Amino acid sequence: MREVGSVAVVGLGLIGGSLARDLAARGVRVLAHDRDPAAVSAALREGVVHAALGASLEGVEEVDLLVLAVPVSAAPAVLARVLPRLGSVRLVTDVGSTKESVCSAAASLGIGDRFVGSHPLAGSHRSGWSASREGLFRGARVFLTPTPHTREDALSLAREVWTGIGARPETLDATGHDRLLAWTSHLPQAAASALARALAGAGIPPAELGPGGRDATRLAASSPEMWTAIALDNAVPLSTAVEALHAQLGDLHAALLRRDPEALRSFFTAAREWADGEDAPPPALPAP
Amino acid sequence: MREVGSVAVVGLGLIGGSLARDLAARGVRVLAHDRDPAAVSAALREGVVHAALGASLEGVEEVDLLVLAVPVSAAPAVLARVLPRLGSVRLVTDVGSTKESVCSAAASLGIGDRFVGSHPLAGSHRSGWSASREGLFRGARVFLTPTPHTREDALSLAREVWTGIGARPETLDATGHDRLLAWTSHLPQAAASALARALAGAGIPPAELGPGGRDATRLAASSPEMWTAIALDNAVPLSTAVEALHAQLGDLHAALLRRDPEALRSFFTAAREWADGEDAPPPALPAP
Repeated sequence: MREVGSVAVVGLGLIGGSLARDLAARGVRVLAHDRDPAAVSAALREGVVHAALGASLEGVEEVDLLVLAVPVSAAPAVLARVLPRLGSVRLVTDVGSTKESVCSAAASLGIGDRFVGSHPLAGSHRSGWSASREGLFRGARVFLTPTPHTREDALSLAREVWTGIGARPETLDATGHDRLLAWTSHLPQAAASALARALAGAGIPPAELGPGGRDATRLAASSPEMWTAIALDNAVPLSTAVEALHAQLGDLHAALLRRDPEALRSFFTAAREWADGEDAPPPALPAP
Repeated sequence: MREVGSVAVVGLGLIGGSLARDLAARGVRVLAHDRDPAAVSAALREGVVHAALGASLEGVEEVDLLVLAVPVSAAPAVLARVLPRLGSVRLVTDVGSTKESVCSAAASLGIGDRFVGSHPLAGSHRSGWSASREGLFRGARVFLTPTPHTREDALSLAREVWTGIGARPETLDATGHDRLLAWTSHLPQAAASALARALAGAGIPPAELGPGGRDATRLAASSPEMWTAIALDNAVPLSTAVEALHAQLGDLHAALLRRDPEALRSFFTAAREWADGEDAPPPALPAP
């Protein structure tokens, strides 16, 4: 990677670990810290990480790029901790699933000029260093959320890093990002977890589910720590989305109690029409 | 297939079509009817079906096995229609997702002795003849629900047919089946459709979802006709299951409004614990 000689990755979970693997594979020197020493040891042993950073993050001064790959609730504190050591770091980014709070924190700390939030739409219900892999971001959308003060060279560098490992960056306003993701990502997670809890309450183990049920509950295995932080951080937009899903299920429940064929048909038909929209061509632009 | 020389399949959708393909591949003569003449023509052209049955189902008399592969709401009427023509048919079965109503209908019509309900846990969100394929049932669980009057030779034949195409039959009481499936299959379908409707209401197209959201909504593409019939037929058990999911989402909504970290952590943690149970060994039996 021409523009980046070295990176510091804080947090070697699924996303941080996969990013470290991709960058190391492209000749970037990788320094890393994780609160779990076993993750760092494994990464050093596998040759992905070249040097461990202590809890004080001493040594960050020398890198080009700092990546925070910690739960979204932890990111502002890590930014504050690393602030005195930012030296000549050209770009600070994170990989969290919410963007408004971390962008605000960066701006408040006076490093909005070299901060760009990143949110790769990659990963899975698995978590931790052992789930990380090279190539995770190939073809994945990555939302980039600049602060009001981000310098153009920092944003360009963020684009280059993600493009360099095969991802497709798109720039988006942090607030708009969080509102969108409440629906596209956080609500599906909430639905899968709620479904898992309902099944648990009925004494139904996962092994009883068919292929469709396994799809619908797959996300329930996601990291509770990560999702608690996301839900708290994006509580207002997510509560709106959860309310909409709650209302849909209330309507379905009422239709079942009434044994209402028209309401049930309409329920399943509208869902299918939505799903069929996936392959629909984008609407034609109106003629000028 | 040693014991079956010929079969009549009524309904050449995903399940009926796949079963016809599997049986034809094992040298069974396949007669078939579908209300869509194009499906029958395609099946004849592909050599899967050897002769078409008319709407009166004349010709069923001569087969060993009759399979109803129509929506669960249509099965009792087809049974009544075919009744005068059952001749020496040794086994009548269906492949629907609910079993109590069809088993009751068979018993009421006086053919409980040669009827066994079948429910293969196979298939997908796709539907129709074009989605059918050979091998769909390989390794799949199939619930067999005898009536109170089913003869042992009819049940044996049902087991042999499903085993012969690679499925794993398990015998279950029809009422117990419907209560179980309300949770393991019908509730995941309801959850996916409700999620799709909530997203549609927010103007979010499927293409905006990441891999996890696509998993959680995959079932929304399922046949509305089939699922309307299932929901009506299993309305009472399904309404209990939907109520449980509705309550989970209500709790989550309240926790988000309170921004309650403990409640949110508990929400996602219990879901993860349920999901992790998938690989847990079965509990040890208590010592005698």
